[in-house]
Amino acid sequence: MGGNTFGTLFRVTTFGESHGAGVGCVVDGCPAGLPLSAEDINRELIRRRPGSGSVSTTRSETDKPEILSGVYEGKTLGTPIAILVRNENQHSEDYNNLKDVYRPGHADWTWEAKYGFRDHRGGGRSSARETIGRVAAGAVARVFLASRGIEIKAWTSSAAGVDAPVSESAGFDWNEIENNPLHMPSRAASDSAMEKIENLKAMKDTAGCSISCAVRNLPPGLGEPVFDKLDARLAGAMLSLMAAKAVEFGAGFAAARACGSELNDIFIPPADPAAVVNTTGEPPLPPGVPLASFRTNNAGGILGGISTGAELRFTVAFKPISSIGKPQETINRRGEKAELLVQGRHDVCVAPRAVPMVEAMCALVLADFILLQRTARIS
Amino acid sequence: MGGNTFGTLFRVTTFGESHGAGVGCVVDGCPAGLPLSAEDINRELIRRRPGSGSVSTTRSETDKPEILSGVYEGKTLGTPIAILVRNENQHSEDYNNLKDVYRPGHADWTWEAKYGFRDHRGGGRSSARETIGRVAAGAVARVFLASRGIEIKAWTSSAAGVDAPVSESAGFDWNEIENNPLHMPSRAASDSAMEKIENLKAMKDTAGCSISCAVRNLPPGLGEPVFDKLDARLAGAMLSLMAAKAVEFGAGFAAARACGSELNDIFIPPADPAAVVNTTGEPPLPPGVPLASFRTNNAGGILGGISTGAELRFTVAFKPISSIGKPQETINRRGEKAELLVQGRHDVCVAPRAVPMVEAMCALVLADFILLQRTARIS
Amino acid sequence: MGGNTFGTLFRVTTFGESHGAGVGCVVDGCPAGLPLSAEDINRELIRRRPGSGSVSTTRSETDKPEILSGVYEGKTLGTPIAILVRNENQHSEDYNNLKDVYRPGHADWTWEAKYGFRDHRGGGRSSARETIGRVAAGAVARVFLASRGIEIKAWTSSAAGVDAPVSESAGFDWNEIENNPLHMPSRAASDSAMEKIENLKAMKDTAGCSISCAVRNLPPGLGEPVFDKLDARLAGAMLSLMAAKAVEFGAGFAAARACGSELNDIFIPPADPAAVVNTTGEPPLPPGVPLASFRTNNAGGILGGISTGAELRFTVAFKPISSIGKPQETINRRGEKAELLVQGRHDVCVAPRAVPMVEAMCALVLADFILLQRTARIS
Amino acid sequence: MGGNTFGTLFRVTTFGESHGAGVGCVVDGCPAGLPLSAEDINRELIRRRPGSGSVSTTRSETDKPEILSGVYEGKTLGTPIAILVRNENQHSEDYNNLKDVYRPGHADWTWEAKYGFRDHRGGGRSSARETIGRVAAGAVARVFLASRGIEIKAWTSSAAGVDAPVSESAGFDWNEIENNPLHMPSRAASDSAMEKIENLKAMKDTAGCSISCAVRNLPPGLGEPVFDKLDARLAGAMLSLMAAKAVEFGAGFAAARACGSELNDIFIPPADPAAVVNTTGEPPLPPGVPLASFRTNNAGGILGGISTGAELRFTVAFKPISSIGKPQETINRRGEKAELLVQGRHDVCVAPRAVPMVEAMCALVLADFILLQRTARIS
Repeated sequence: MGGNTFGTLFRVTTFGESHGAGVGCVVDGCPAGLPLSAEDINRELIRRRPGSGSVSTTRSETDKPEILSGVYEGKTLGTPIAILVRNENQHSEDYNNLKDVYRPGHADWTWEAKYGFRDHRGGGRSSARETIGRVAAGAVARVFLASRGIEIKAWTSSAAGVDAPVSESAGFDWNEIENNPLHMPSRAASDSAMEKIENLKAMKDTAGCSISCAVRNLPPGLGEPVFDKLDARLAGAMLSLMAAKAVEFGAGFAAARACGSELNDIFIPPADPAAVVNTTGEPPLPPGVPLASFRTNNAGGILGGISTGAELRFTVAFKPISSIGKPQETINRRGEKAELLVQGRHDVCVAPRAVPMVEAMCALVLADFILLQRTARIS
Repeated sequence: MGGNTFGTLFRVTTFGESHGAGVGCVVDGCPAGLPLSAEDINRELIRRRPGSGSVSTTRSETDKPEILSGVYEGKTLGTPIAILVRNENQHSEDYNNLKDVYRPGHADWTWEAKYGFRDHRGGGRSSARETIGRVAAGAVARVFLASRGIEIKAWTSSAAGVDAPVSESAGFDWNEIENNPLHMPSRAASDSAMEKIENLKAMKDTAGCSISCAVRNLPPGLGEPVFDKLDARLAGAMLSLMAAKAVEFGAGFAAARACGSELNDIFIPPADPAAVVNTTGEPPLPPGVPLASFRTNNAGGILGGISTGAELRFTVAFKPISSIGKPQETINRRGEKAELLVQGRHDVCVAPRAVPMVEAMCALVLADFILLQRTARIS
Repeated sequence: MGGNTFGTLFRVTTFGESHGAGVGCVVDGCPAGLPLSAEDINRELIRRRPGSGSVSTTRSETDKPEILSGVYEGKTLGTPIAILVRNENQHSEDYNNLKDVYRPGHADWTWEAKYGFRDHRGGGRSSARETIGRVAAGAVARVFLASRGIEIKAWTSSAAGVDAPVSESAGFDWNEIENNPLHMPSRAASDSAMEKIENLKAMKDTAGCSISCAVRNLPPGLGEPVFDKLDARLAGAMLSLMAAKAVEFGAGFAAARACGSELNDIFIPPADPAAVVNTTGEPPLPPGVPLASFRTNNAGGILGGISTGAELRFTVAFKPISSIGKPQETINRRGEKAELLVQGRHDVCVAPRAVPMVEAMCALVLADFILLQRTARIS
Repeated sequence: MGGNTFGTLFRVTTFGESHGAGVGCVVDGCPAGLPLSAEDINRELIRRRPGSGSVSTTRSETDKPEILSGVYEGKTLGTPIAILVRNENQHSEDYNNLKDVYRPGHADWTWEAKYGFRDHRGGGRSSARETIGRVAAGAVARVFLASRGIEIKAWTSSAAGVDAPVSESAGFDWNEIENNPLHMPSRAASDSAMEKIENLKAMKDTAGCSISCAVRNLPPGLGEPVFDKLDARLAGAMLSLMAAKAVEFGAGFAAARACGSELNDIFIPPADPAAVVNTTGEPPLPPGVPLASFRTNNAGGILGGISTGAELRFTVAFKPISSIGKPQETINRRGEKAELLVQGRHDVCVAPRAVPMVEAMCALVLADFILLQRTARIS
């Protein structure tokens, strides 16, 4: 099966190893007639590219995407959209010392246990470069969603143990997110986290983080119970990202400690009860179903696996980068004890680069459900 | 698409509404030759049945499963295994007052927003009875896994804000799990949580909980990067359970606050480095790949989306039961403000009944990956 | 994987062996809001039931379908529609002598080669009763298609070597199809074929046949190039029917002998060239695309794997029933030569009963494509 | 959904339009450890390339494939194998006159009816170049099958109304197939057909053909009843090829006119009845199932949708090339009558080039079933 295809109707297949000829994706099922250009793809790829600061590696990736198919005269044809990004600036020799040992925290040993051998150069397929295909495909999905007014926005909600504020009253600032190296919604939080990250870097150590995501203008009705619920698919999408260890929706783990009377989100009647039919958006509400909104949003915008129309909210936890600069004990291919000193270019924290990855996977899930929802009712 | 089928090779399709004729499943892709009886199914269904204590509803479900197909002379044929559980003892009239209002925290409104109308009786398809099909299918998967020596065990790790101990030194007792009404690994924790639950019940309120799961004897190599990673699929499976709001693997959210040097699990060399080939289990390690174990298990048994062979560990957070006994504000089908008083039989906490559900979904995921792994290498 | 699920959006999973508890199906993805009753299912099951004439077996199947889920107050809920038909009137003892030998032309040996053992009673899963699940699911699809005005009609185009006329000028009569035991579009052809069948029956032999199918009012645009073309999916659907050996579309095999100038179907301009947009039907033609019709229909209603809107036409060839009454040589489970005399109730020709099966599979394919087409364009 | 992915475990997604940047495929699920080189791909692409004779176009395609991913040190990694062939030597201007008219027999109008617009240049995605991705993917499958000793061989069994001999006694010569321009198994037949094709070419007309295919050394047990039978999947695969109008297996349409006593293939006991277990090949026969062979092969190597181990045999009918050189009536985008004179480079008959396409699709189906069969039994 392979596991490299995601989605039911809006489907993406990604390919590529870190030090092979290139990485990319094929998007199949994108509706025809959508305006799309290489620039739409490139804009997102730039956001996931390593920066030059303390957080990220210094591999100077240019990552120019080429659209190989599926677009004609600036519009999608309804045929597969293949996107290729060539690999360049590889320092394969940096990885020679990893050929025969297994890096702790990495997939080296498990890939061998599964497939019998691996491409050790740069982690092969389990490299961060693998996400280029996802981000490129997600960019296509985002154009489709944007044409429906749907906005996806992610940010770093914690890094190196420093939490960003969660409410605007506590200092959460949407406009700050793209202005600091960690993409936190608060300059103060970013500064504090960056200081910790600098310290960790000096100690040749790395840091974990969490990324939160909000989606606005999502129509109600998205999600396919019982197995392809909106949260189920998003959870699967998020945990498919490398280094992800947890995901929570709305109140999340706190919900497990709450009681029902405080967690239930109370319905608010529409201002005009006569305005019972929403005919805008995709899909519109069916005849006879009233508009609804909610006093709180502990549900994170999902009830019974279906979007409520309220803001979709979830958070993903990422472990620290496994490639630390300190010497580590490990074993080699002969099963003997060995010492490892990881070389090459490595991030300290996935935080800023994980933001567009989370957005991309979210976009892929939502585009799929937008299309699926067109088939939920007889007309 | 519908969303009612789960899995790639070991596939289950569930069906049924709470107050329809019955609920059940069809398991397609179970290998031929597996000994299977209705008793194997019934054993698991009994575990998810409501008890008579404070935690659970008093609907006296008997839930006798009938195997309609796929088994001959006590063995699976390789054909679809259809299992039916008739609905009985329905009090549909309890739900008459819910026909025109939307219960907070439930899927009433979102189902109407999606499908245009709903079966309001007992929640219809979004009832807890929907999980009977999952547990029945999971029972088949468990028989398959057990034949390979794989053991799945879940327990309540927190309920109503009371945490169970996490280590044996702190009092975690495997043998206690099936001995108390909440299925916690500690009598003291269970007693304490039950007291809180009794209080909440008296106040007509409900409680959240979290369920943890451990899998032993899992072979390494399971999981299909990059989108069908073991944790990705498990995350999707868990969030498809009603009321689930979060999932974490291994160190989980704590990983987001850790640094790499403390989180990396160090490899331990095999006692005999010459014993480099493991030929037991399914699948065996490929030639030339050494046995490996780990000093710690922050990874929760998964690296790069592939099982390591260490204990698989994850925790799922469930929100409190939405059907509280207190009056609640809501809206009706005309978009007007309404007051709701939920009647009928309702649990206070999903805790004990969610245990077999988590195990069942885990079993379905693992059975699928066991089969998929047979195709990973050329021979 | 199992192979017992068909379709992408309108999906059916069938189950059941000939002499197990029952046979049936689960339809997932049927849109919500479709009026549906058990009578809609029963009507089609009656058409596939064995008659009392020379052609068919005398097993008196009643085959009452029960809808277990997915329908509430006479309308589909958007949830899985499970349908069960109990097995009754089984003469399992008729099959005792088949337990250790392999019937020529049957799947006895190949099922053992694949699965290791088999349910020998009545052919198990490879019995004609397996098609009950298909016909039941197809009945649901037909109701959906009928609500869009789409009509599917199949007939026996040849039986026992006797061809029915192909044109109305040669005697093809739509109204005759349901009036004769073979469901041929000509009484004379049916009489002639029945005479041959009586002779074959007297000689304890059996006859092949071909079934043709026409679909009217099909909207243009159905089919998903390049692998899920309309003809590709229909071909797969038809060859999945037991005893099917060939399928052809439009001119079919004759096309291989034709030249292009005689085979190309010439476009006819619409009566009113200004009427360039068709806004009726599902899906409507996109803006700017003219209505089109064709002078001939050698294409059988399909160009490039997409429906043209002209009548869809195809023919399926079925081999003779393999269970002949004459003694046959074979081998037993020990690999020794054996003689076989098949007993029990067997048809002489699949002809009349295959008609609703072909229609059912055709309906399943078309319902799926109707839904898929809703996602082909951005709006 | 898109329709551009084929297969369940051994999966291919193809992409590309005739006059876009390139065409290609991504193969996901190819087992790890298979020796593979670009030369393996190129060898098959050369076979589908247009020749210089009367039959084929004169577009000088070089079609050098580049393996972008999935292969390391000459072996498959178990990761997606992406293959790209750049488009070159395009004469897009040849198609300018087709922008506003619909070619009879082509998919021009149906693609617009489906997607709203199309890439008219060279047929866009419905060009013969689309099959490059299939042939490249099929080449990977063939290497996998060859490693198991499975041999696929197709040939032109009729062209321009001239039939090749079907038996060796009548002149069928395996060694002749690759020696003549039409790839017929007889020089005399090829000469005769070529003469007809030259005449048709002179008359600016085109010819249909049929391609037959035989597979040897196929293990028994392949195919997944009831919907993914071996013949069902092959039928779908073949009808997905452009211009295909029919397919038949074994006796095919002749079976519809035969009686059971002449069509049933009689089992032949194994020479040594004690040799009841076949432990060679993939998959081996299960314990206790005797070796079997057959006196005849009217079944074409398939019983009940499962391979018998006898030679697999089927034939596909292709219509004449729709692009004839004669003026044709048609309509334009405004729905008005128009005259069309097709220009550019076009084949007279798909015959020689369809041979590797049929083989490629066959290989893809078989590789998938080889992998699926590994999961049919518990061990």
